[in-house]
Amino acid sequence: MKALKTLRFDGPFQMKRGVLNNPTFAFETWGTLNADRSNCVLIFTGLSPSAHAASSNVDPSAGWWEDMLGPNKPIDTNRYFVICMNSLGSCFGSTGPASIDPETGEHYRLTFPVLTVEDIADTAISVLEHYAVEQLHTVVGASMGGMTALAFALNHPSQVRRLVSISSAARSLPYSIALRSLQREIIRKDPLWENGQYLLAEHGPVTGMRLARKLGMISYRSGEEWSERFGRERALGFTDEDSPFGIDFEVESYLETHANKFIGSFDANCYLYLSRAMDLFDAADHGGSLSSCFTSLGLESALVIGVTTDMLFPVSQQKELADALANHVGEVIFKPLDSIQGHDSFLVDMDRFRPAIAEYF
Amino acid sequence: MKALKTLRFDGPFQMKRGVLNNPTFAFETWGTLNADRSNCVLIFTGLSPSAHAASSNVDPSAGWWEDMLGPNKPIDTNRYFVICMNSLGSCFGSTGPASIDPETGEHYRLTFPVLTVEDIADTAISVLEHYAVEQLHTVVGASMGGMTALAFALNHPSQVRRLVSISSAARSLPYSIALRSLQREIIRKDPLWENGQYLLAEHGPVTGMRLARKLGMISYRSGEEWSERFGRERALGFTDEDSPFGIDFEVESYLETHANKFIGSFDANCYLYLSRAMDLFDAADHGGSLSSCFTSLGLESALVIGVTTDMLFPVSQQKELADALANHVGEVIFKPLDSIQGHDSFLVDMDRFRPAIAEYF
Repeated sequence: MKALKTLRFDGPFQMKRGVLNNPTFAFETWGTLNADRSNCVLIFTGLSPSAHAASSNVDPSAGWWEDMLGPNKPIDTNRYFVICMNSLGSCFGSTGPASIDPETGEHYRLTFPVLTVEDIADTAISVLEHYAVEQLHTVVGASMGGMTALAFALNHPSQVRRLVSISSAARSLPYSIALRSLQREIIRKDPLWENGQYLLAEHGPVTGMRLARKLGMISYRSGEEWSERFGRERALGFTDEDSPFGIDFEVESYLETHANKFIGSFDANCYLYLSRAMDLFDAADHGGSLSSCFTSLGLESALVIGVTTDMLFPVSQQKELADALANHVGEVIFKPLDSIQGHDSFLVDMDRFRPAIAEYF
Repeated sequence: MKALKTLRFDGPFQMKRGVLNNPTFAFETWGTLNADRSNCVLIFTGLSPSAHAASSNVDPSAGWWEDMLGPNKPIDTNRYFVICMNSLGSCFGSTGPASIDPETGEHYRLTFPVLTVEDIADTAISVLEHYAVEQLHTVVGASMGGMTALAFALNHPSQVRRLVSISSAARSLPYSIALRSLQREIIRKDPLWENGQYLLAEHGPVTGMRLARKLGMISYRSGEEWSERFGRERALGFTDEDSPFGIDFEVESYLETHANKFIGSFDANCYLYLSRAMDLFDAADHGGSLSSCFTSLGLESALVIGVTTDMLFPVSQQKELADALANHVGEVIFKPLDSIQGHDSFLVDMDRFRPAIAEYF
């Protein structure tokens, strides 16, 4: 976390459905702002990543988008000054449900206001003011981050020239809402959630979080990939003679291993707030319909990338976004990619994503 | 249940991985066996339905396949004598984990042997012997029932002439295994499961069952259908001001309402056994590979129907089954349908399924 920077917002921060007093906004930066402050790229993250998108001299540990961001990489930090925000509501530096409410001296927990994607977008304004950046070169986001980037462009049309939306959507549709709603219910039904009042030091509903993470992992990938990768391989070393319902197959041990890595690192209440923020997002709230909400956008160009095997943010939704933007943005590039890793492809299918992003920059 | 018939198996019933003493096999029948006993159609069910596939004079309540089975319907009970088996391991008449073990006088619970699809298939032999049916006109099954029908044809090649496999597969692949494994884990992690020792009268892990059912419902349908059906409609009458994570959207209230109908009617341990039986099924176990396992099949013809929006049993798996059968069965008809209701289409998209089944019969 040593590369993490924080900025304290002075006074009441107005959210869409509430107010936070003196919240903290956390972020990391790479590269150098140029003289006319025209080379700033802003990245918003998906639900769970921190602001540590890539390594740097200050923090050489690999970031979640290590292959995409850095010197001579597709988002070239020799050319751009890059900011990656930690989402408001998260637990990696920015104020969220696990933070202390300065009014009460207690953790916010469920007293945290309803969180929206627009609130997360608005936190970046303070950071841009801090660096005296009046207009972004590009705002970038994948998954929830794509919604946040779009919300930023809608709320602050004069402050961004270009948009990159990756495996995201203009609104949440019922299939992804159902999956996220079920993840949240699995967490809330864990007796250790205790209506949000669990002991933070003990991580609370770890079983619920582990099960919700497994559901997430299933929805982030594709059946095609797993058939190639696991087939019907049996798991070794997981045989539990005491349980007739333990782990038989390699795919089950894969889920178990990876879900266990996740728990403990992410606060359950933060997860609930961020997850619901995605459900609530609908660009049409900014102007009546998807065709009219983009009327006041100030974008010169936009790149919309999707993946054909993504079932959480299906490529039809990327197409919908690109088509709706096309009426109000000079240049819109819609790029559906044939990755087989589903929604997660932007994190792993670098052979397809690197050139697509590099070409746009 | 008044139309339900039962047959007690005399002595030890050999399962693939265990033995049951004097088990009961439950089934319903419709129509009349003809003089040369050549008009018998056998139906195996999916994981959760009972043997009550359709109404009759004895039980006029609607069955789970009411539109498909009956006088002058696609499976015409004026022409055929139809048997629908209740799966071994289920809780609707056939012996299962919720039944009493005659050896101990206690419920089987987790002492029930590992259940396989082949075991379910073999129970029908006793019923056919009871009616002195030497050869079936057709064996039919959808979803898990399709696996069971295929297992019947593999284990008893001389006893069936024709096969109808609907939205099923020759083997379980890792994506559906992962979903079912997660459903089982959600149930097992409900503290009320109590390692299978819950009080049967109180239905045990109802929360786990409700959550697992919601996951099932999500995987049984398609995003396309839900977008058309629910869009971003808000739920009315579900507002819970006490919870910031209650029900916002119509799709959430739909899941809640339907999952609540399921719990209480299905025993949790039975669900676990049947679910795992699907994971374990692989036709290739009957002969080394999918191409060679069908060598000894005695089928004259087979109909393989799938649905393009089915993500649990993707149409590529129906195609795989049809192609593998084609080398060893005289006539194989592969019929992919454009239903948008996903895996559940065979229960609801009657305008497409009725003619497809009627034509084959």
